[in-house]
Amino acid sequence: MKAVGLVTEYNPFHNGHLHHLNMAKQVSGADVVVAVMSGNFTQRGEAAILDKWTRANEALVSGVDLVIELPIFYAVQPAHLFAQGALTLLNQLQISELVFGSEHPEIDFNQLVQAEEQFDSEEFSQYNGTYATRFNQQLKQQTGIELTEPNDILAYCYHKAVQQMNSSIKLTAIERVSNSYHDQRISSQIASASAIRHAVFNQLDYRESVPEQTAIDLFQSKAVVDWNMCYPYLRYLINQASIDFLQGIYQMSEGLEHKFKEIAENAATFDEFMSQIKSKRYTYSRLSRLCLYTLLQITDTEMKQAAQLPYLRVLGFNERGQEYLHSVKKDLTIPLVTKVDRDLKQGALNLDYRAGKFIEQMTGAAQDLKKSPIIMK
Amino acid sequence: MKAVGLVTEYNPFHNGHLHHLNMAKQVSGADVVVAVMSGNFTQRGEAAILDKWTRANEALVSGVDLVIELPIFYAVQPAHLFAQGALTLLNQLQISELVFGSEHPEIDFNQLVQAEEQFDSEEFSQYNGTYATRFNQQLKQQTGIELTEPNDILAYCYHKAVQQMNSSIKLTAIERVSNSYHDQRISSQIASASAIRHAVFNQLDYRESVPEQTAIDLFQSKAVVDWNMCYPYLRYLINQASIDFLQGIYQMSEGLEHKFKEIAENAATFDEFMSQIKSKRYTYSRLSRLCLYTLLQITDTEMKQAAQLPYLRVLGFNERGQEYLHSVKKDLTIPLVTKVDRDLKQGALNLDYRAGKFIEQMTGAAQDLKKSPIIMK
Repeated sequence: MKAVGLVTEYNPFHNGHLHHLNMAKQVSGADVVVAVMSGNFTQRGEAAILDKWTRANEALVSGVDLVIELPIFYAVQPAHLFAQGALTLLNQLQISELVFGSEHPEIDFNQLVQAEEQFDSEEFSQYNGTYATRFNQQLKQQTGIELTEPNDILAYCYHKAVQQMNSSIKLTAIERVSNSYHDQRISSQIASASAIRHAVFNQLDYRESVPEQTAIDLFQSKAVVDWNMCYPYLRYLINQASIDFLQGIYQMSEGLEHKFKEIAENAATFDEFMSQIKSKRYTYSRLSRLCLYTLLQITDTEMKQAAQLPYLRVLGFNERGQEYLHSVKKDLTIPLVTKVDRDLKQGALNLDYRAGKFIEQMTGAAQDLKKSPIIMK
Repeated sequence: MKAVGLVTEYNPFHNGHLHHLNMAKQVSGADVVVAVMSGNFTQRGEAAILDKWTRANEALVSGVDLVIELPIFYAVQPAHLFAQGALTLLNQLQISELVFGSEHPEIDFNQLVQAEEQFDSEEFSQYNGTYATRFNQQLKQQTGIELTEPNDILAYCYHKAVQQMNSSIKLTAIERVSNSYHDQRISSQIASASAIRHAVFNQLDYRESVPEQTAIDLFQSKAVVDWNMCYPYLRYLINQASIDFLQGIYQMSEGLEHKFKEIAENAATFDEFMSQIKSKRYTYSRLSRLCLYTLLQITDTEMKQAAQLPYLRVLGFNERGQEYLHSVKKDLTIPLVTKVDRDLKQGALNLDYRAGKFIEQMTGAAQDLKKSPIIMK
């Protein structure tokens, strides 16, 4: 059986994702579609708008055969670690090809990856801007190209990860048909996930842009978790925590712990907090992820240890997905997890477990201990 | 000027407190009444029903001349540390006499304190019950008397503290005229604070039992903070925290950190949590205080260090109170605090500051940084 892989967040699953899924089947000619999907929190450092089970189900309903959770130590990371993590899992699952959307599929990403080796490391480390700014400055010097669109950046990271892993996975970029990632308008059957979330939070109509299952899920969802809901907990924690504790949080650096403490005292909303924390030095996503690490109390040590021990957590499959999983099982060199028991909860899966616990508290929906993979008939 | 001291929680200030205040003036013949009052959290390990400023104001309106905050490291403690702390402050303030309510004012408390020296320490430490049970078993063996009523126990602790401090403060017990502490009924103009809180939380009428100011305060209060409001934060913290972190919390002992973690996972309400944590080994108050230490992330080290550095935090006064404070100021051997600045906030007052921050977040009412003592005209 030939498998095509997708790296996804499905936040939520929309018509653009359906198009991507169908194109992936078509261009790869694969028998089975494997999606690696972020769990309850996303790369931008936010809770997903629907929990991982609901989103996995949406994917299965739409024709994905096997959904694997991208653990939080990969999912809530900058693009290069996110891509590396996703490809680590897809490589284990022996997919032949990864099909991904890109704003500029015509770019020769492999060539850009080569160019990175020529970067002036001294200049790179001196420049006082975000990582992305410094990266692009160097890339432009070497190749004349800049990567400013999020899916182009991910495409680059996939190529780099495949090279680093010496993987045989074929990488196929297809053109994204959605509006721009940042576009908040819903103007057609294709809208960005960001625009759909914006519509949900602002009671606007998004139904044209999503498959029926997603519309049902968003309609039925009792608690759509966003930073406004999470911020009181973050604020409480920062106000009570010691500076030492905050310093131990993953990615808390350069005195940000002092800024966090100072600003949380008076910032009544997440937007207020972020607008005061934000500086040229850090992107919004970097800071939003840091807020999430803090909220979930993820220490530097925990994050680094967890990332050394990846696993394949199965969220759901149909018959084809199950058959495929069975066929690759014997070659796996990392654990396959279908149920979370006490040992896993306190061990390798602890970070995902805690992330799930938080979502459970917010929504009342069980996330881990009592859950078996979804079996799609 | 002769001062009489009161040790209070005023949670909230009610007619029984007014009676106590008037009796204290009468029996002592003092010129000035000094009340030491718990701040935003009480001895039972709960948020006070109204914040410290509101309650201090109620006391001043009713005729107390000077209100001093009992810092959290004294206020949220078992009776003996609570009493010791309160008397440390009142001793600094050179009061002549402490007048307190007791269920059995006829008891010779000094004699009981002597009896404690005869306790069989081996038997005391072996018996597997709460501290109070073991204490009473021994006390009964020595004197035939048991101390089961909360104000009798406090009375005992005042006597012990005065002996330990070699203080000249005269101790005068007066009979409590309220219903029993635990009585939840409101049947007259005198009801217990506990009954009044119960009435507030259950939309029953309590107006007959409180002075007008308290009735106004309870009516106007936007957010009356109770454990139901605080529990989501406690639960969140326990779910995310490491066992090491929980072990570091003041009074977290004998594996309670594991029980906390296990039970918080599924206990959706504070009552559920407490009913599962409760055992013969610990009183409800002991566990409720432990929950509060955990909520406010108060470590063992912090609590012990803080208790070594007491201070006199002035919440309010009238002219007489101010004059009295001025007259004793030069003899104080601990700091007098009227404003919380950056150093105090991060230093000696840090625990009260954090407690206030939590209440600020719950109620929106500023507690420390921007507050000056109430000046009652």
